[in-house]
Amino acid sequence: MKEIKAFIQPFMLSKVVRILQQIPDFPGMSISEVKGFGRGKAKGEPRRIIEDLVEYTPKVRIEIIAKEHMVDEIVALIQKNAHTGNKGDGKIFVSNVERAVRIRTGERDGDAIWSPLKDE
Amino acid sequence: MKEIKAFIQPFMLSKVVRILQQIPDFPGMSISEVKGFGRGKAKGEPRRIIEDLVEYTPKVRIEIIAKEHMVDEIVALIQKNAHTGNKGDGKIFVSNVERAVRIRTGERDGDAIWSPLKDE
Amino acid sequence: MKEIKAFIQPFMLSKVVRILQQIPDFPGMSISEVKGFGRGKAKGEPRRIIEDLVEYTPKVRIEIIAKEHMVDEIVALIQKNAHTGNKGDGKIFVSNVERAVRIRTGERDGDAIWSPLKDE
Repeated sequence: MKEIKAFIQPFMLSKVVRILQQIPDFPGMSISEVKGFGRGKAKGEPRRIIEDLVEYTPKVRIEIIAKEHMVDEIVALIQKNAHTGNKGDGKIFVSNVERAVRIRTGERDGDAIWSPLKDE
Repeated sequence: MKEIKAFIQPFMLSKVVRILQQIPDFPGMSISEVKGFGRGKAKGEPRRIIEDLVEYTPKVRIEIIAKEHMVDEIVALIQKNAHTGNKGDGKIFVSNVERAVRIRTGERDGDAIWSPLKDE
Repeated sequence: MKEIKAFIQPFMLSKVVRILQQIPDFPGMSISEVKGFGRGKAKGEPRRIIEDLVEYTPKVRIEIIAKEHMVDEIVALIQKNAHTGNKGDGKIFVSNVERAVRIRTGERDGDAIWSPLKDE
């Protein structure tokens, strides 16, 4: 299993969520708000905020744990649908996940992130 | 060292925290609020929220970095104590952590996540 | 590539951010607020909060994805600049990241987290 973690523009979130939810067997995702601190070189960014002498831009963090065969599709859909072409579009990272447990059923690993018979 | 990351129901958090803090040598944990987007098939969920045409449910993310010999116990306690038996109980993931540093002391790796003599 | 994840005192954040942004080629970072639950033994901590019978302290989570040759420098700077010498200074963790994609350009891996020619 892999964790796909993306940091995207907040105003692109609903588009990305709707697209991902159309993937058959999409395993679900978690969203949280973060502050992004870039390399401090972007000029004229509209939503840049200064707080305590440090500039940041709001971003949304998406976390998805998926089976390996779905990773390429999910990454490509995020990249395509979170894309504006402007600075600050964000990044996507993939890392390894060793174990998974579904709390409701105790299912493990691949079954924990997708088990159609038990979930319907 | 391993990272244990769990996404659970917010109303199960205080029970889970109290149980985990009773583990001898528990290394500590971090909590943050996230929005969970499932597979869009659950019906009649009480706390489901619609915002910007996308439905989500509130979840709490727990992050624990622990030594490997404690992982099974921590995962089992989260699974048992975050469990309601209903959809939306959440999931637990385990991944590898290569290095750790305790900021106060500069201790590294295993000592960074537990060092009784220096911490009391 | 590596993910550097640090949990630090909120009042040390602006110092840490300003120092990190001075690193040539710093890849950027994300910040979010978390609640830290330690081992429940610290006494007299000023900002400890009790909610729903559980005590916690506010922390800030920093996430940085960097090339390997920068990890030691970034970890050392966080440890030095987030350090007060008191309990609750927090911890820094390093884990592996397998893939990266820059959403704006589609660049991958090392180029996704730093590409000077295309970013200026």
